[in-house]
Amino acid sequence: AVGRGEAAEADKRDYNIPIVEKNADPEQMLLSYLRKRLRLTGTKYGCGGGGCGACTVMISTYEPASKKIRHYSANACLLPICSLYGAAVTTVEGVGSTKTRVHPVQERLAKCHGSQCGFCTPGMVMSIYTLLRNYPEPTSEQMMAALAGNLCRCTGYRPILDACKTFCKESACCQRKANGKCCLDQEDDLFDKEEKVSTRLFSTDEFQPLDPTQELIFPPELMRMAENQPKRTLFFHGERMTWISPVSLDELLDLKAAHPKAPLVVGNTSVGPEMKFRGVFHPIVIAPARIPDLNVVKRMDDGLTLGAACSLSLVKDILTNAISEYPEEKTKVFCAVLQQLRTLGGEQIRNVASLGGNIISRKSTSDLNPILAASNCMLNLASRGGKRQIPLSDVFADGVGNNIITPEEILVSVYIPHSRKGDYVSAFRQAPRRENALPITNAGMRVLFEEGTDLIKDLSIFYGGAVSTTICAKQTCGTLIGRHWNEQMLDEACRLILKEIALPGSPSGEKVDYKKILVVSFFYRFFLEVLQSLRTMDPCRYPGIPMEYRSVLQDFKTKIPQSIQIYQDIEPSQSPQDPVGRPIMHQSGIKHATGEAVYIDDLPSVDGELFLAVVTSSRAHAKIVSIDTSEALKGPGVFDIITAHDVPATNEFYYSDGPEIIFVICVGQIVCAVVADSDIHAKQAAAKVKIEYEVLEPVILTIEEAIKHNSFFEPKRKLEHGNVDQAFETVDNIIEGEIHIGGQEHFYMETQSVLAVPIGEDKEMDVYVSTQHPAIIQEMVAASLGVPANRIMCHVKRVGGAFGGKLLKAGLLASVAAVAANKTSRAVRLILSRGDDMLITGGRHPFIGKYKVSATRIQGKSTCPYSVNKSFSVTG
Amino acid sequence: AVGRGEAAEADKRDYNIPIVEKNADPEQMLLSYLRKRLRLTGTKYGCGGGGCGACTVMISTYEPASKKIRHYSANACLLPICSLYGAAVTTVEGVGSTKTRVHPVQERLAKCHGSQCGFCTPGMVMSIYTLLRNYPEPTSEQMMAALAGNLCRCTGYRPILDACKTFCKESACCQRKANGKCCLDQEDDLFDKEEKVSTRLFSTDEFQPLDPTQELIFPPELMRMAENQPKRTLFFHGERMTWISPVSLDELLDLKAAHPKAPLVVGNTSVGPEMKFRGVFHPIVIAPARIPDLNVVKRMDDGLTLGAACSLSLVKDILTNAISEYPEEKTKVFCAVLQQLRTLGGEQIRNVASLGGNIISRKSTSDLNPILAASNCMLNLASRGGKRQIPLSDVFADGVGNNIITPEEILVSVYIPHSRKGDYVSAFRQAPRRENALPITNAGMRVLFEEGTDLIKDLSIFYGGAVSTTICAKQTCGTLIGRHWNEQMLDEACRLILKEIALPGSPSGEKVDYKKILVVSFFYRFFLEVLQSLRTMDPCRYPGIPMEYRSVLQDFKTKIPQSIQIYQDIEPSQSPQDPVGRPIMHQSGIKHATGEAVYIDDLPSVDGELFLAVVTSSRAHAKIVSIDTSEALKGPGVFDIITAHDVPATNEFYYSDGPEIIFVICVGQIVCAVVADSDIHAKQAAAKVKIEYEVLEPVILTIEEAIKHNSFFEPKRKLEHGNVDQAFETVDNIIEGEIHIGGQEHFYMETQSVLAVPIGEDKEMDVYVSTQHPAIIQEMVAASLGVPANRIMCHVKRVGGAFGGKLLKAGLLASVAAVAANKTSRAVRLILSRGDDMLITGGRHPFIGKYKVSATRIQGKSTCPYSVNKSFSVTG
Repeated sequence: AVGRGEAAEADKRDYNIPIVEKNADPEQMLLSYLRKRLRLTGTKYGCGGGGCGACTVMISTYEPASKKIRHYSANACLLPICSLYGAAVTTVEGVGSTKTRVHPVQERLAKCHGSQCGFCTPGMVMSIYTLLRNYPEPTSEQMMAALAGNLCRCTGYRPILDACKTFCKESACCQRKANGKCCLDQEDDLFDKEEKVSTRLFSTDEFQPLDPTQELIFPPELMRMAENQPKRTLFFHGERMTWISPVSLDELLDLKAAHPKAPLVVGNTSVGPEMKFRGVFHPIVIAPARIPDLNVVKRMDDGLTLGAACSLSLVKDILTNAISEYPEEKTKVFCAVLQQLRTLGGEQIRNVASLGGNIISRKSTSDLNPILAASNCMLNLASRGGKRQIPLSDVFADGVGNNIITPEEILVSVYIPHSRKGDYVSAFRQAPRRENALPITNAGMRVLFEEGTDLIKDLSIFYGGAVSTTICAKQTCGTLIGRHWNEQMLDEACRLILKEIALPGSPSGEKVDYKKILVVSFFYRFFLEVLQSLRTMDPCRYPGIPMEYRSVLQDFKTKIPQSIQIYQDIEPSQSPQDPVGRPIMHQSGIKHATGEAVYIDDLPSVDGELFLAVVTSSRAHAKIVSIDTSEALKGPGVFDIITAHDVPATNEFYYSDGPEIIFVICVGQIVCAVVADSDIHAKQAAAKVKIEYEVLEPVILTIEEAIKHNSFFEPKRKLEHGNVDQAFETVDNIIEGEIHIGGQEHFYMETQSVLAVPIGEDKEMDVYVSTQHPAIIQEMVAASLGVPANRIMCHVKRVGGAFGGKLLKAGLLASVAAVAANKTSRAVRLILSRGDDMLITGGRHPFIGKYKVSATRIQGKSTCPYSVNKSFSVTG
Repeated sequence: AVGRGEAAEADKRDYNIPIVEKNADPEQMLLSYLRKRLRLTGTKYGCGGGGCGACTVMISTYEPASKKIRHYSANACLLPICSLYGAAVTTVEGVGSTKTRVHPVQERLAKCHGSQCGFCTPGMVMSIYTLLRNYPEPTSEQMMAALAGNLCRCTGYRPILDACKTFCKESACCQRKANGKCCLDQEDDLFDKEEKVSTRLFSTDEFQPLDPTQELIFPPELMRMAENQPKRTLFFHGERMTWISPVSLDELLDLKAAHPKAPLVVGNTSVGPEMKFRGVFHPIVIAPARIPDLNVVKRMDDGLTLGAACSLSLVKDILTNAISEYPEEKTKVFCAVLQQLRTLGGEQIRNVASLGGNIISRKSTSDLNPILAASNCMLNLASRGGKRQIPLSDVFADGVGNNIITPEEILVSVYIPHSRKGDYVSAFRQAPRRENALPITNAGMRVLFEEGTDLIKDLSIFYGGAVSTTICAKQTCGTLIGRHWNEQMLDEACRLILKEIALPGSPSGEKVDYKKILVVSFFYRFFLEVLQSLRTMDPCRYPGIPMEYRSVLQDFKTKIPQSIQIYQDIEPSQSPQDPVGRPIMHQSGIKHATGEAVYIDDLPSVDGELFLAVVTSSRAHAKIVSIDTSEALKGPGVFDIITAHDVPATNEFYYSDGPEIIFVICVGQIVCAVVADSDIHAKQAAAKVKIEYEVLEPVILTIEEAIKHNSFFEPKRKLEHGNVDQAFETVDNIIEGEIHIGGQEHFYMETQSVLAVPIGEDKEMDVYVSTQHPAIIQEMVAASLGVPANRIMCHVKRVGGAFGGKLLKAGLLASVAAVAANKTSRAVRLILSRGDDMLITGGRHPFIGKYKVSATRIQGKSTCPYSVNKSFSVTG
């Protein structure tokens, strides 16, 4: 792979030369390779699981047969560098910088105020940039789709979209013109005349034009390599893992026979998170992406055959084309599949995730399996024993997900049939967020009527997400055959479905109820959709859908928002030097957009630096009987284990929120920490620390339980006004009640980050930390080390979002890092993974407030001379 | 080798474990290995040539045959790590630290105020520590000898010796007692009664006792290795160089036959500086130290045979023992050789330098060759062709240094004969500094008289340092045979010697005159010494030496100084909290002594850091026609070459001393700079930059020449008082004159040091620099980069000596580093070698002052109503 960044490793004079990595480790993802190995820190770590887009880069590949170059965005956090053989990687540094030229995408994002904390900005730049490489004048729909995989927590997206719109074909305005003027130019008309207001936040006149001829070309050396080098099997051997990339199906089948447990990896969006977050380890992985049979795209008389390694983006394009070319009645399956593909992951995920991967590995949450199964799709399987074709629905036939595909078998391609005349096909999904989120429940449904009637001839209903696998409402479907498509059938169907789809109970129970509602809602919607279609064909025969239900049929298409910001305009007499009231770009705006803005983990590594990984308590209330670190200490690169015994002074802090403890005990609290030469080694070792607990009662998980056990953080808080007891005896009215507020994750884009660097003298320490409160960090670190505060220098340049969440916890984590740095005399870096961050930090606490107010009517007016207010707040 | 430092590389929990270096590079010296590889920065770089002792460490070796452990001090800067196979290295970190315990040597040096800038202190500690390991109660002579190789530029040594004396057997005081009280306790008596004074600077009560049983033991693993592993030939292959250490003479002779050009290296005190400072490169070196034949010590009837690999310290011990055991008449040669050995190098040099090395490689400046040659010493040579014995004097017989030892031959041992009855033998030397400095001229002389007379029977006079080799005044000696030892002979001898020893002319001529004086002075002294001895034997026959000449015979033995510091004592009423007037230890005193005090080059390396080496002009006045960097850029690890073109803004500064230019031109000014991944690579590449000059006239080298060519830095300075012209016409007297003051090197122990670290945003830069004037550094760096000064953070924690020499030049060097850091976006470290430092920095300028003063007698008094004073100052 060739990096296109500005700085590079072991490079000479020309700072923009190809990078040849001779020891590609299959466990190394592109993100850490870019950030740590090549020192290209513009690409950010936000979640590590392809969920936030902060690590978006552009991958470019060249296909010698078609002589086509493909540019696509991808999440560097999930992309193994081994998968980039022959590919070019463009990072935000390669797009532009203050040292070369700032790219129009970067310039406009900054000048349209599209950056605030700036941590998501490089990822935004890369998503937009990649889109513009492929479509220099995109539609606003394309723009929205391109950004669906990128989260921003500060701006509310409006200013980001303002910047995006300047690249779109359509007018940047709301399209409503009045008096021949664009609405954006009608400030005087739009708003209250008394106060002069403005909505103009930037001037497009000063933007450089986008000139597609000025972009970086695909590296000619890679083009030559692709054209001249015969494809051969690649082996990459890492510290623990081997990556094999065969080039022929025969070879693949041999490999699979030899290593039946080795997973096939194309986009690594399924196996990757499994290995990262669930501790699954595969000593061998097989990458089949380069095998022609798995990339086949074949149009047949009755359907399409698509290779299992085809990316979801490619499938999306193929289906979109097919829909525009085939008669409507043949494309109902395609439309339903496409419906799911639009929101399946973000663009970055779809660009790398494979069709086969989604089918094979995402048993339960696959958005494709229910609709493909309901549509009679077929799987073409192969093994050294031979080839066979099976219906996808057979895979889920037993309802418990026992695999009928043998370990030696691989999925070569998928056959998606045309819909038949009289087929009605729909797909549904509900997810926490419309785009780029795994579904809570989804469904695929198909009905075929006896020709010219509404008598059910064939019905197929599949659900995903409900239980541990995709399941078919087989009995329901069988029972309903021959029934009319009417409300009686609907009632019966809902009853049957709820009976057949037995959802397992969960501790809270809430999700089960929710899923049940979704399961019947999806069928209800399908009922209405089909009814609507029947009526469209034969309005006399089928009833119209009552007005109040029609909203059910509306599709929530995400349109580009048209909100504007209105602010008090400056007076014409205001001096041009006076910035007050003018929309001024963020001081670091351009640097946010070029990736040059330095956050904690972008600080270059310090000589001998160690990475710290935390070991957290898995019990809410327990006594730690023993901590066995022996296995962890044997791990490669492990330097030491830090426990409470290593804290030279204070291990507990008392602030307004109750005690804060550096090392344990509460679920998620830190029991000990491993320091090693890399984050991977530290985390591997942390997983090997064995902690023996003696569980204590009571286990308090909710505020209600805390109240019940009288478990309060002192002092209790109570607001009273007046003589309360006396008042309640004499008042006319007493009003009592409770307010519940749920907890809330802060979800700053930059996870908690600390770099503690011992100066080497007098226990002095430089502490670089992402915090809103440097003074308290200094105080806590000094207290934990038992040194005067003036020995601790707390440095904060900028914070990648905080929202109140980088105060005391940041101080605790800084203390953990500082204690480790003090013990080892080494610099210690502690960058919480997203999972650890959400586990360890409390977020905004849930809240219960109880109030009791008395009211006495005085002289005809209702007043509140006395009031009582009790409130409790417990960390969840 | 096993490092005993506290921190160590790639180590685990136990931070004090053995270090196994599998890729020992023969070009790697222990100093850089300790500092850069093991991050043990307590051992300092002062001169790199064994001249200052700042890098002193203790080496311990174990001899399985005798079961003896030898501890000796050595200069880490000259010690190849390859030579340390099986040896243990103790650094100042291993002796003690604030984290473990502070060793008594460290404590006392600090508390006796023996550290000021602190840069020499760790070396002092190691010299004293090593002495105490061998002699827990040393004599003051041993202490003086142990410290002779350690320079201090701040303290004037007195407080260092105060600390040392507390370990010595003798009383710490001046030994003059009065009224039964030690002189140190007699403040009231010693000094003016009116002002209460004190000389008490520390209290010995608070010192920990020295407990020799508490020292680190010799590593048992190395002991086992020495005892159990058979000796085998060692090969170390480095980047450019191979080190071969054979174990038998046969093997050595084979190697020498195969590689006749490969030098033999024992202590590396001769080949090392040649490679470091004179660009000599040896692809192969042979280390014969482990061969028994070369370590032989044999007492014979008529003399001693000493192996060529014997260290000079061992030779010193052997001769000292022999002198105490043999009758005086047999030991006159030994005494003379010992006289030279006492001042030959410092203890650190003598501990590693070999007898053979001094004889073979130091042709001209060897302090041993003249006396050994004059004493009829013999060399035992061997080659694959056979063995032979030749008189050492034959080596110098031709007077021009043509080698009669063939390239295949090696020196196995040296035979030093007993003196015969009637032999008078003396050795002389004159050096810039008595200890640890190469001689300007030295001599060895021997005379044998006809028995019972003063008639010269045999005379041998050898000089070193005078010309390019050791030479013999052969004709003089021949002519004087048969003459009486009287003043006539002396006159004749001086005349003959001056005629025979033709000293080549030099540009300045001064040194030639000085050497001529030395050449005859040595003989004059020899004349007096012999005369004295003759008279002692037969006072009636030989004349006494006149009183006024007797001082010539006094030996300048360096005794421990007994100076004391007297200061105004505090009043008894002064509050104990009031520090004024109390002798308080340097705030960093303990850290100086433990090596924990961090200087610029002790800062850990920054990620991706580059080392900068300067290429200086070799012409005083020239036009640079071209700079050819092509070969330099091809060097391993070379990153870039920085020239004046890379300076974004100001290249010239005008301050009070005239212009300061970042890049060129004057001898020693910086033409360009190489940045590479290590200091060695940078320096290797810098040597390959080819500069073509067009020499310009005039070349101005002295102030006189500058005045002649009217070359002044404006504005000219002239001090006038009153109406000068008028006054000179009317005055009674005019006094005119000139004052000349020579230039002076500042010679701070820590050479000029800069670390420029780009922050990565807005051209911000952290500049860590050893300077007395951080503000001007900030200003100069900002001006050179063309950024506001607030972008440059200049950090100064401490300075390893400066004496006025770290002001403007430090700013220039900081600008060079900053320009390179700006261009490369990498941290750049610039640590001047001692040679470059003395070349580039101006030092205190030489000075000529011209004055003209008028004086008129008024009313009987002499006054100076008018005066004129002109002064010129030109950088040398």
